[in-house]
Formats: sequence, structure tokens, C-alpha cells
Amino acid sequence: MKVAKFGGTSMASAEQLIKVANIVKADENRKIIVVSAPGKRFKEDTKTTDLLIALGESCLKGENTDDKLMAIVDRYKEIAENLNLSNEIIDEISTNLHELIQADQTNTDRFMDGLKASGEDNSAKLFAFFLNSTGVAASYVNPKDAGIVVTDDPGNAQTLPETYENLKKLKGRNEVIVVPGFFGFSPEGNLVTFSRGGSDITGSIIAAGVDAELYENFTDVDSVFVANPNIVDDPKEIKELTYKEMRELSYAGFSVFHDEALIPAFRAGIPVCIKNTNNPSAPGTFIVAERDFSKDPVAGIASDSGFCSIYVSKYLMNREIGFGRRLLQILEDEGISYEHMPSGIDDTSIILRENQLCDEKEQRVLDRIKTELNVDTISIRHNQAMIMVVGEGMTSYVGISAKATAAFARAGVNIEMINQGSSEVSMMFAVAESDAPKAVVALYNEFFTEAANQEELPLVLR
Amino acid sequence: MKVAKFGGTSMASAEQLIKVANIVKADENRKIIVVSAPGKRFKEDTKTTDLLIALGESCLKGENTDDKLMAIVDRYKEIAENLNLSNEIIDEISTNLHELIQADQTNTDRFMDGLKASGEDNSAKLFAFFLNSTGVAASYVNPKDAGIVVTDDPGNAQTLPETYENLKKLKGRNEVIVVPGFFGFSPEGNLVTFSRGGSDITGSIIAAGVDAELYENFTDVDSVFVANPNIVDDPKEIKELTYKEMRELSYAGFSVFHDEALIPAFRAGIPVCIKNTNNPSAPGTFIVAERDFSKDPVAGIASDSGFCSIYVSKYLMNREIGFGRRLLQILEDEGISYEHMPSGIDDTSIILRENQLCDEKEQRVLDRIKTELNVDTISIRHNQAMIMVVGEGMTSYVGISAKATAAFARAGVNIEMINQGSSEVSMMFAVAESDAPKAVVALYNEFFTEAANQEELPLVLR
Repeated sequence: MKVAKFGGTSMASAEQLIKVANIVKADENRKIIVVSAPGKRFKEDTKTTDLLIALGESCLKGENTDDKLMAIVDRYKEIAENLNLSNEIIDEISTNLHELIQADQTNTDRFMDGLKASGEDNSAKLFAFFLNSTGVAASYVNPKDAGIVVTDDPGNAQTLPETYENLKKLKGRNEVIVVPGFFGFSPEGNLVTFSRGGSDITGSIIAAGVDAELYENFTDVDSVFVANPNIVDDPKEIKELTYKEMRELSYAGFSVFHDEALIPAFRAGIPVCIKNTNNPSAPGTFIVAERDFSKDPVAGIASDSGFCSIYVSKYLMNREIGFGRRLLQILEDEGISYEHMPSGIDDTSIILRENQLCDEKEQRVLDRIKTELNVDTISIRHNQAMIMVVGEGMTSYVGISAKATAAFARAGVNIEMINQGSSEVSMMFAVAESDAPKAVVALYNEFFTEAANQEELPLVLR
Repeated sequence: MKVAKFGGTSMASAEQLIKVANIVKADENRKIIVVSAPGKRFKEDTKTTDLLIALGESCLKGENTDDKLMAIVDRYKEIAENLNLSNEIIDEISTNLHELIQADQTNTDRFMDGLKASGEDNSAKLFAFFLNSTGVAASYVNPKDAGIVVTDDPGNAQTLPETYENLKKLKGRNEVIVVPGFFGFSPEGNLVTFSRGGSDITGSIIAAGVDAELYENFTDVDSVFVANPNIVDDPKEIKELTYKEMRELSYAGFSVFHDEALIPAFRAGIPVCIKNTNNPSAPGTFIVAERDFSKDPVAGIASDSGFCSIYVSKYLMNREIGFGRRLLQILEDEGISYEHMPSGIDDTSIILRENQLCDEKEQRVLDRIKTELNVDTISIRHNQAMIMVVGEGMTSYVGISAKATAAFARAGVNIEMINQGSSEVSMMFAVAESDAPKAVVALYNEFFTEAANQEELPLVLR
């Protein structure tokens, strides 16, 4: 059996739900459907989840919420009416929302979690109702009944291990099951949401639990591209990616997938396919445990900005046992997570996401390092971008780094830092944020255009 | 005034001492002379220091040591006789050695330190005696009288700050002062040696203390070369190097200079010149605080072997605050110092000198990391070499890394790891030990031969 997850744009309108229903009907192995809340219908539209958050915040302030609630009900109503569904389902959704805003507000996180989760929950009810209306045997199944048990961290639930055993009971049912994404229940029975975008997590957990042959993740693009289409014109599509490659690409700004979503599928060895609801015949991008690297040692190029780099030097630093550990201890004390800590002989840099530092905290951290570690010099460089060249096949070839650095040189981009070889999956370059688009284009041309094959420096298999 | 230090080969024979005396006479600013123990006279010869160590070990075993002691006295005697010096000085040296082997053996480290230090001490006495015999006003000055005060760590003394104040009294004396290198005295008056090769340290301390205009370090080569002459045929000479460049080159196998020796000169801003006793008219290599980088952004290429790399991966490692710090804590617990810890998103490598690990310790460290940090995979790669491209000017140019990596690719050498940009002085590459010579030759050709200037990829100043 296959588990298929449909994102917000796939659930945004009657037109989209018809497409989704047709996709479900087209393959009888698509037995479990995980849905998001209705997303944007057009570029300036507001996602249902954001309407729900605004509604919840109004409730907590004691404001009149009639209009806000009505706007949400209307989103579902528009879909239901255009699908010629009976009023029954909209009455149910309306009643549900009225109950939720009356719920106990003592614990505001829990109150908000209940409202936010209703986006997916009512979307699932509506879609199951629609499937039934078209003659497809389908049931809405609540995550509690499905057995998705999570930690009691509102907005950041972690799946508990018993979930996978519980989910087995979803196998072999003679109908389509529609499960809302994004939330589970704590062992005490409280509804708790995953981090935002967590419908991907629900799909991945269920695919692992029922040992699916495939986890299909339907979005609104034909596939994952080798580079950001906003930076590179008409980039190539990726046919196959490994889990590790996907993880590194999504870390560095590929937003196709929720960052943690792949873990359950990864651990269970379930292949994942990213497909387009609007063009389901396109083959999509497969995410697999292993792929043939010979044709494409490089899988993709990603970039992400918002980093800063703290540089520290101290004569004979490398003789000082415990220096690195004490440096990291200061960051840990300050609740700062670092990304990388490349080091020279007598100097070391710490790369971190700069949104963790306000001016005051930055000054305190620099002062503490200077004083407590008695360093010779310390400085900080802001507005850095990380460019990642990702591909598990790269380690098999001599000359990848030569091609990559040549691309930077031709583009006139100064490389602030290279980190290669610590990861078996990626090569990382720090550049000034303003240089990042130029660098991505140059790398794309180097590795993915025809000209690349005529390069003076051919790759040599080791 | 200048401080000149003469190494073991410069003090090995009468012929060499005559050269040294001529060098001293040739420049009346050479007022303070620091000497090593007599070194090798020919390739298979044994250094006096090694003879002294063997003598000390025999004493501690209670063996008959007459022959060993005589062999040492004979080294000095041969020099003295060939210089037509009176017996007086050899009698003094012989008496000194007989006293030293009779010394208290309760503390074996201290006993050995006394014997080892006598190599330099008697060398200084002999040379001062010789200078006087040629009509040069010269005095032997013991480090205790000079005021070199050090920590009481036999074989690893650290200079105490009062030393620099004490040394000022050596200024303005109307004669040449000859000081033995390699040792100082603890505040309690115990003789304590520096780490091996520590005569360089003595010279550097004295140069800083007397605020010398120049610290001349005489060895047996005309200059420092841009690459190891055993690997590259007839490499270019380095005219000028910065302290930081020297430090990074000496870290990675350039053995011209004792590793820590430069610190006192560095902190005091004293320029250093490496010169050849056998060819004193050659200009030598100057080590300075700043140099003009425009002609030679790359100063030199070094390589060092004997490293290993521990590779650790764990899905979502970068989300785990404290992971890196706990990893370093395990190494610290085991008394292991690491060189570098480059990291990817979900993986990290630790590069360390493999002589720190016996099989049993290696297994224990790997087991502890695996168990205590609950990692997905862990592996270790042995027999790695580090290749360093060193030059403070590199950060001013775009394209240095492209030239370097192209050189590796042309030589067919796989780069296991690149670490660039964390240091402002060097770029570091890990390769298999067996590939290291090939890599050094390729980098030399890229950066230092005529062909390099005709490269397709010119360096571009930022």
C-alpha cells in the first residue's frame, strides 16, 4: 500500500480536491491519505492555519471573533458548495470551531494547539465526505484512533515509539483512510501539534508504521530542482535523491520538505516520492536510501543566508587541551547552537545562525570568549551565506572541489570558508550574502550545463 | 645589539667554531651569543645531547659509565685540541661531568636534566674560552646569572615573566656574552630544561629581554625553502616570512625552527633572521611581523603525516545542543588533544595525531563516542597527511583555492578534507599519506614555477 500526503495548495479549493480525488482513484494502492489544512488559492491569499492563529489570538485577547470564525467556516463552505456537498459537513465544521473557541484558555499553548490542528482535522473530514459522495469508500480517522502518540510539547511534539506498533492496525482496511496531518495525542490524551509544516511528519510516521511500499508527498511542483528556480533560470529536475542528500538540501534552504519529516521514513527504509497534484503524470522526485551516483555525483546546489562567523585567534591555541570544549561550553551556557567550528592551528571560527544573537548578547558572548579564554584577537563577521554542493557520489570522484572552486573564481566570488570532507554528502562554502546568487549560478553552470562536460578538468573516478 | 644563536652543527667541530668566531667578529653588534651542544659532524654521527642521555640512563641503571663519559669529554677535547686551546678548559668540562654523574639520583628527571643541560653549558664555556684565545673580549654567562627563571617542569620548562626584566642587565656590556641555550632555573634554583631543541627558545627569550634589533638564528641551510627539498627538487628560497606563517609551516613539518621558540620574539616584535653558518654572506630568511604580500601571497607549502580522522554521523546532529562539546569532553577525559573538528550537518570529523592512540585506547574512545553520544555510525581512517598552503596574503586574493584544488586534481590526488578560511594564514588539505609527496610537488608547481604565471586562472586581487 501507498501513503499519500497532500499539502495546503492541494486542499485549497474544490478544483484542487477534485484533482486529489482523481489521484486517489487512479491507484488503488493509495490507501492512506494525509491532508494539510486548506492553503493559499492565489499568491496573496491567507492560509487557513494563519486564519486560525489570528482567531485564537483574538479569543485570548477577549475580542469579538465572529468575523474571523466566519471567514474560516467560509473557506470550507466555498469548497463544499463548489463540490455540491450537503450542508451536513459544513455544520459539523462550524460546530467544531465554535466548540474550540469556547475551550479552556488556562493553558494558552494547548488552546492554540486545538485551534491550529482543526485546520487539518476539518480538511480531512471534508475530504473523506467528498470521497464518499463520489462513491469511494472512505473514512476519516482521527490521529487518536490511528494511535499517533506524542510528547506533550505543544507546537513541537515528538513521536513516541509505541505509535509505530499502533499504526499497524490501519493496514488491510478495505477503504481509503483520510488522516489529518500535523498533530497527535499525548499519553494523557491531550492534542499536541508538531512543529509547523508537520503534516509531512504525519505522512512519514504513518508510512513507516504501515510499512508502505511508497510514501507519496504531493505538492505543487513537478519535482525538486537541482537549484532554486528563483536564482537559476529553468534548473534541471532531480529524478532521484538519497535521504541524506535531501536532508542536507533542506537544511540549506530547499523548502520542499519539512526538515525532520523524513526521519521516520528514513529509519524504516520507505522510499518517498515528491509529486505534483496539478500534474500527477510527471514522474516526480524519488527519495531513496541508495542511488546510482555515476551519472550525477552532484545532486543539487543550495544556499542559505543569515549566518555569522566568530573568529578567534590565540598563539599556540592548538597546544591548549580543552580550548575548543571550553569555547563550546560558553555557547551552550548562552543557549546558542553553532553550525560549524572549523579550526586552523592557532585560530578557530564558529559559524552560527545570526538570529540567535541580539546586539547585547553578541557583545556578552564576545566578551566572555575574550576574557575567559584569554584570546589574542576576536572578531565577528555578519551577513554570511552558506552554499552547499550536495551529492553522496562526490566522494568517489577526484576533482569535484577543483570544479567547484574554479566556478567561484570565474564568478569573481571570494570564498570566505571551505568545509569539505567532514561530511560524506556535501561540500560547504561560506560567502558574503550578496555573492550567494552569483555563486549558485556559477556552480549550476559548472555541474549541470552542457558546457560543464567540455571542461578542461574532467572528473576522474577514484 | 643583535642576539645570535648557533645550532648543533655550528658547534660540532673546531672548523665550525672558527666559522662562528669569524661571524661574531664580523659584526660588532653581535653581542650575545647563544649556543647549542656540539651536534653531528657527519651524517652518521651522534649528537652530544644523545650521548649525554645515554650516559644518564647508564648511571641510573648502575652500569659502569667510564667509556660513555670519556666519549663525551673526547668530543670537547677534539675541538679544543684542534683549536690549540690549553688543557684548562677540558679539565673543567671533565670535572663538571664527573660531578654531574655523582649528583643526587632521587629525582631522575632532575638528574637527567642536569646532564642534558651540560651539553650546551660546556659548549658555551668552550666557545667563550676560544673567543678569548683569539683576542675577543668574551664571557660565559650562566642562565642563572642571566636571570632566566622558568617553571619547575623538567624537560618542559616555561619561561616566567620576571625573566624579561632580569635580562635587561645584559645590555650595554662591553664584551661578547656567551650563554648556553636549552635551560633555565626555577625560582627555587633548580636547573630545568626546555623541551628538546630549546636553544632556539633561549635565543628568542634573550632577544626579547634585551630588546635586540635582530635575533639571528644560525643553522646549516642558507634559508627556509618554500617546500621540503627532500620532496621538491631545488625549491625556491623564502626571503621573508611572517611569524604566523613560520608558526604554521613549523607546525606542519618545517623543522627549521623549534615550534614555541618564536613566541617571545613575536610578542616583543623582534625580527628574526635564519642564516647559514657555512655561508654567512647569504641573506637568509627574515621572519617579521608584516611583509609585502603582493608578490608572494603564498609563502610556503608544508606537509606532515601521522594523522587519523574519526568520522561520526547522527541524523539531526546539528539540532542537538551540546553534541560537539560532549564529543570534545570525551577526548579531554582520555587526555587526547585534537587538531581539527570540521563538521557537516549531521556528521563531524575529528582529526588528531595518531600516535596518541594505541589499539586499546582507540577502541575505548570509539566505544565511548558510540555509546555515550548514541551516534548512527562511527569510523576511523588512519595514515592521513595534512598538506598546508601557508600565506597571510592569500585572503586578499580570489582564486587561490581554485588554483590549489586544480593542482590536486591534475596530480590525481583525492582530497579527503579541505579546511580553508578558518585560519587567515593557511589552507589545509587532508590526503592519504602515500599521496602527500605528489600533492606537495603539484602545489609547488602551481604556485612557484614559471608555468604557474601562465595559468588559465589568474589570481584576482579582491
